[in-house]
Amino acid sequence: MDLTKFNTTKNRFDIINGEEAKLIDNINDSLMWGAMQHLRMAGFKWVEVPTLTKITGACENVDTLYHVNHFGQEAYLAQTGQLYLEAKIPLHEKLWTIIVSSRAEDRPDSRHLNQFQLIELEHKGALKDILMNIEGTVKAMIKQALLEHKDALESLGRLDELKRWVKEPFARITYTQAVELLKGTEHEIEWGDDLSSAQEQYLVKKKGNKPLFISHFPKAIKFFNMKGNLKDDKVVNSADLIMPYSGESTGAAERENDYEKLVERLKQSNMFRMLSKRGKTVEDFRDYLEMVRKNPILHSGCGIGFSRISQSVLGTSDIRTTTNYPIQCDVLY
Amino acid sequence: MDLTKFNTTKNRFDIINGEEAKLIDNINDSLMWGAMQHLRMAGFKWVEVPTLTKITGACENVDTLYHVNHFGQEAYLAQTGQLYLEAKIPLHEKLWTIIVSSRAEDRPDSRHLNQFQLIELEHKGALKDILMNIEGTVKAMIKQALLEHKDALESLGRLDELKRWVKEPFARITYTQAVELLKGTEHEIEWGDDLSSAQEQYLVKKKGNKPLFISHFPKAIKFFNMKGNLKDDKVVNSADLIMPYSGESTGAAERENDYEKLVERLKQSNMFRMLSKRGKTVEDFRDYLEMVRKNPILHSGCGIGFSRISQSVLGTSDIRTTTNYPIQCDVLY
Repeated sequence: MDLTKFNTTKNRFDIINGEEAKLIDNINDSLMWGAMQHLRMAGFKWVEVPTLTKITGACENVDTLYHVNHFGQEAYLAQTGQLYLEAKIPLHEKLWTIIVSSRAEDRPDSRHLNQFQLIELEHKGALKDILMNIEGTVKAMIKQALLEHKDALESLGRLDELKRWVKEPFARITYTQAVELLKGTEHEIEWGDDLSSAQEQYLVKKKGNKPLFISHFPKAIKFFNMKGNLKDDKVVNSADLIMPYSGESTGAAERENDYEKLVERLKQSNMFRMLSKRGKTVEDFRDYLEMVRKNPILHSGCGIGFSRISQSVLGTSDIRTTTNYPIQCDVLY
Repeated sequence: MDLTKFNTTKNRFDIINGEEAKLIDNINDSLMWGAMQHLRMAGFKWVEVPTLTKITGACENVDTLYHVNHFGQEAYLAQTGQLYLEAKIPLHEKLWTIIVSSRAEDRPDSRHLNQFQLIELEHKGALKDILMNIEGTVKAMIKQALLEHKDALESLGRLDELKRWVKEPFARITYTQAVELLKGTEHEIEWGDDLSSAQEQYLVKKKGNKPLFISHFPKAIKFFNMKGNLKDDKVVNSADLIMPYSGESTGAAERENDYEKLVERLKQSNMFRMLSKRGKTVEDFRDYLEMVRKNPILHSGCGIGFSRISQSVLGTSDIRTTTNYPIQCDVLY
């Protein structure tokens, strides 16, 4: 079956009731149920987080925030519920939530949606624990799709590859190893640069054409509360999950639980520099910082971008194939 | 256990990690899982709907829309995904989704949140079918809480009542019967008036102190696409589920599937009168109307307000007890 007619936001109401749409809906339903069921069985508690927030609902790139007037207060559409989940860590071992993450990206392309379902996990424990839980969750999603829609996946030519992904362990390299692997190729980068999606896909191919964790990124290019590595001060205990076809699908990290370091990191972060220009101060993060000061518990978490997983399972080149109503800057429904 | 300290939005970060918060989180986790599990087992497919929308994301009261600038286009935070779920009815028997419903209410009170989790169902079939599915879903939610948190519910004094609610059928009356029941009491209303929450709770008490469906409301006070009753032209095939303590928790209806009638109803609706003043026309509903014209399939649906169910299970007088981060006009997190 050919899904290329979904590689656009145009004329959506003409195509969302065809056979291709049914296949996509069915796969998504299985993927979502696979995640929900797995997280419950693994002991994660669902909690609600706010999605109309103060600045603490932002990811690194605060330029892509949607602004909302909340009765005279400046509010934003949340990009992540991470800090609100973290604020509940003193009370629970493992938490999850699902939000619509909003990113006001002004370039409509095949890789980014302005809104997407984000499954967020947070639990007590270290990076290795959250990576195990991400791998478990993504595999549970794919297994559910294989279980319920084998024929559909076969019609897309996806069966053999997906079976292999759930059987084999996901590949793992560090960011520093990634830089080494790219050396001497057309994708060469300098240590400290962020990875482009072309570079990510090159690495995926090099490491077995399956989901790939890249860990221990340079501190400077990552979110302020990612915990620094004790052996190598330049990197943080973080990892991105790179999926074949769709690229970065999950960002994960240990959270800095040393209050003094956390405040220092916040002040030095790129995000904070951008926020300072808009009049924001450390006070805007006070509730979160206080929680860490009072409860310096080692914890880790992640956000799994549902559409990136879906795209990878479908094996398409365009993220707009993954949802009936893909929101980009030039369209609304 | 006493939950009254949650009857406010003040100082939330001081109370969300106490024992009372743990109890509330646990109950909510069970309620949510009860719903997710039940809907999957009952054959409902999860699909994603947009929550940053055109005017077709609005409920009746368009004055309570949050406005968002979407790259020069006027967008709104969705109040319901109903029309987007309905647009998928030609393809599927039964659909569900969960969204954050946004209502820009400017009065902070004990009954309304500006954002809340809304579980939406839509399926082929009539009003009686959707009522059966609502009752099944709400009972599954409560059963899951009883199964997993019996002691906690006992500590709130909720055990006996909740056991009775899941055992007995929900009560059912028509709107016209409700008007009769209120006659001669301090709650008396005229036929055609909407019911206040005090009137709803009076009716709940009269009908056995358990969840109560009130059906067949006057056409004039309900959403434009609720299907008219064939025997009585003045009412629509709709029902609200009134829960003890929290009130209206679910709105449900058959959807008008006669294209001509639907367009007529839209034009005559209060909502449309309000929208006309803002320059909106029938064209803004074109995609939805075309779907009905091409696929005049009888279908029905509902939206279950999660926090209203939670409040009723907890047995509290204040909806702010049901969530860690209750959003109202005077607060953000």
